[in-house]
Amino acid sequence: MTIMKIQEMHITPVAIADPPLRNAAGLHAPYALRVVVELITSDGISGLGEMPGGADILGDLEAVKHLVIGADPFQLNAILHAIEAYFAAGDAAISKETMCTTIASRRSARTYSPIEVACHDLIGKAINKPVCDVLGGRVRDRVPFSAYLFFKHIGAGGGLGFGVDSSATGWAAARQAEALTPGALARQAIALCAAFGFKSLKLKAGTLEPELEVASMFALREAFGPDVPLRIDPNAVWRVDTAIKFGRQMEGILEYYEDPVRGQAAMAEVARAVSMPLATNMCTTGFEDMPGSVRLGSERIILSDHHFWGGLRASLELAAMCRTFGRGLSMHSNSHLGISLMAMAHLAAATPNLTYACDTHYPWQTEDVLVGGRIPIEDGCVTVTNAPGLGIELDRAALARLHANYLACGLTRRDDEIEMQKVEPGWKFEAVRW
Amino acid sequence: MTIMKIQEMHITPVAIADPPLRNAAGLHAPYALRVVVELITSDGISGLGEMPGGADILGDLEAVKHLVIGADPFQLNAILHAIEAYFAAGDAAISKETMCTTIASRRSARTYSPIEVACHDLIGKAINKPVCDVLGGRVRDRVPFSAYLFFKHIGAGGGLGFGVDSSATGWAAARQAEALTPGALARQAIALCAAFGFKSLKLKAGTLEPELEVASMFALREAFGPDVPLRIDPNAVWRVDTAIKFGRQMEGILEYYEDPVRGQAAMAEVARAVSMPLATNMCTTGFEDMPGSVRLGSERIILSDHHFWGGLRASLELAAMCRTFGRGLSMHSNSHLGISLMAMAHLAAATPNLTYACDTHYPWQTEDVLVGGRIPIEDGCVTVTNAPGLGIELDRAALARLHANYLACGLTRRDDEIEMQKVEPGWKFEAVRW
Repeated sequence: MTIMKIQEMHITPVAIADPPLRNAAGLHAPYALRVVVELITSDGISGLGEMPGGADILGDLEAVKHLVIGADPFQLNAILHAIEAYFAAGDAAISKETMCTTIASRRSARTYSPIEVACHDLIGKAINKPVCDVLGGRVRDRVPFSAYLFFKHIGAGGGLGFGVDSSATGWAAARQAEALTPGALARQAIALCAAFGFKSLKLKAGTLEPELEVASMFALREAFGPDVPLRIDPNAVWRVDTAIKFGRQMEGILEYYEDPVRGQAAMAEVARAVSMPLATNMCTTGFEDMPGSVRLGSERIILSDHHFWGGLRASLELAAMCRTFGRGLSMHSNSHLGISLMAMAHLAAATPNLTYACDTHYPWQTEDVLVGGRIPIEDGCVTVTNAPGLGIELDRAALARLHANYLACGLTRRDDEIEMQKVEPGWKFEAVRW
Repeated sequence: MTIMKIQEMHITPVAIADPPLRNAAGLHAPYALRVVVELITSDGISGLGEMPGGADILGDLEAVKHLVIGADPFQLNAILHAIEAYFAAGDAAISKETMCTTIASRRSARTYSPIEVACHDLIGKAINKPVCDVLGGRVRDRVPFSAYLFFKHIGAGGGLGFGVDSSATGWAAARQAEALTPGALARQAIALCAAFGFKSLKLKAGTLEPELEVASMFALREAFGPDVPLRIDPNAVWRVDTAIKFGRQMEGILEYYEDPVRGQAAMAEVARAVSMPLATNMCTTGFEDMPGSVRLGSERIILSDHHFWGGLRASLELAAMCRTFGRGLSMHSNSHLGISLMAMAHLAAATPNLTYACDTHYPWQTEDVLVGGRIPIEDGCVTVTNAPGLGIELDRAALARLHANYLACGLTRRDDEIEMQKVEPGWKFEAVRW
């Protein structure tokens, strides 16, 4: 193979219809913002990556474009180091995020991530191998995902906002339905599992009274029985005493207890007081957090996320640390398109110690930017084929439509608090609420 | 690319001439044992790996051959898992080694390592990329190594045994010379650096009285000045009080203090008492040791070794852990051929945080199995070219000669204690000597 050169880097912000899902930070806006990164080599190969959107990541990706153009996609270390050096030289403020602890050193990892994924797509296409085989080879062909349940207000999102498409049936109807009670949540779960075959259930909690959320877990247990693993994620807004009290109530019905409280020290305190394993994607979210995690024992399971940990290879390094330090491994998601879904699937296919089904918001979205449309999830799994690279192809007309959505919707950054205020005037995010 | 298949696996034990070098376990035999592993694909591509030799590794490699034949070299996870499953199913005893703690779970890693290196050589050749680019891309073209100094008895090793080739000059003469005093050691170092341009010096200690070994370090400092980093490695046979006493004497002249004492707890005790960083390839030698290392703070630098940690990708995982847990990274070696040297060089070329020059015994050997003969070390560095794979080719006549050496020499496992008894009758290995 001659040396490949990246000749073009296209950064396209898109907005995808997203229903009014509740979380601890507020409410999902009618559109979720994502960025599609496409790298094109001098011999015309296209590689794809995707990131959570917003003005900050867009600016950062534009800022490093000149470092990527001309690079060889095999030279991943060099591309990362150039990005790190660029941000280390600047002093620009880091974006404020409601849901995650963001520290300066992570800016490079986040900017690099969609570029690294696109480089792996390029490498795979160039050598005619699926990305999972570039990463050490597949250990599974079908990657399991869990059903991601939300309390929600009525509404389809997108142009319909809080309205619904009344012609919808099945999951498409359930996706729009209000779910603010245990019974409604169980109905949502049943519809979601009927449509996609998920074998485990996760509730995004931390949004209604803990008693109601815990009752919802018992409603799920009642509806699905003991063979369907359950997870609850209060997104760190419970106090330690609240988390211990309700954690003990849920002992015996939870597969894991995700981020009931904020910070490693509080997590460790809860971990000592309950019998089920704690999981996190909030108190241990980058390599800098690992020493504290090991020292404090803040969780027994880490939800990896290649978008935030610095790409697919960094995620394999995290997996090695989980093996080494006795932690289980699951995977976190935001609202996303099929590019991220396939990147997650290839990573999971090459990760021997993926011990839990991955999270995905994918069923909550209805659009995509891929030729062939939406990626199927069957029996709760995404199939990783032997097609080269990520095994997907960009539908440029679809990308243009979702970019037009972005321009039209007027959103430039995620702010779930403002969205929630449209439903509950005066609603304020609280880091510890109950 | 169509799917590659490994069609043949050739396991060839070889013996290479090795001078009578002293270490804490005794004396190097006239021949060092290595194993050359060659994988050949159905389309005729040859991939090379190399391991420390001996009956145990030979038996283990033969035992897993049927798991490797037919495999696709890209499916590294699958090959490793097959080997792990094979050894997990058996109950064969683990080889006893004088120098390293060996536990059952490491047998798979060691057996897999030369196979994994050979697979990377195959992958690189198949996609026309150097192995460093298969591993994430090069961060350096020239990999620095340090001069490896030994107390030694007179002798060339090999067929000459304790005799010398009196026609030799320069390093070839110094290689045969006795070195049992500080002055002789300094002369050895000067000859070694003159021949190879090394920029840092390491003494294999733990073999003579500590006072004499420490005096040798000061002789090196005197001869080379403060700009040449010095390391001493007593191979864990010093007591804690001895290590602290002599460590304090050497504060200010050591780059690092390698394995003065045995075990993580003792290492941590010494680490707290001296100012220079401690390094190890004896108390933290596999991923199972990492939690203890982190908990105890047993060392600040880890010497990786792809032969023992489970290959090139596992070594990159170790590198990530060193970055994450604030440890420096260097590289360990045994007596070896050019296959291992190039595997080490490609790994180092793709390891951003290789913070120290690597160890190598390579100048002490004179033979090789490669077309073109010995690999040059210039200015203390091995150059990593853009040639595909490891960038080397097997010289089958040379391999046959070194295999004939193996058959003729009668050695089937390394036993430095027996060799030492030939020089000092009654000499016994002691785990803690001074």
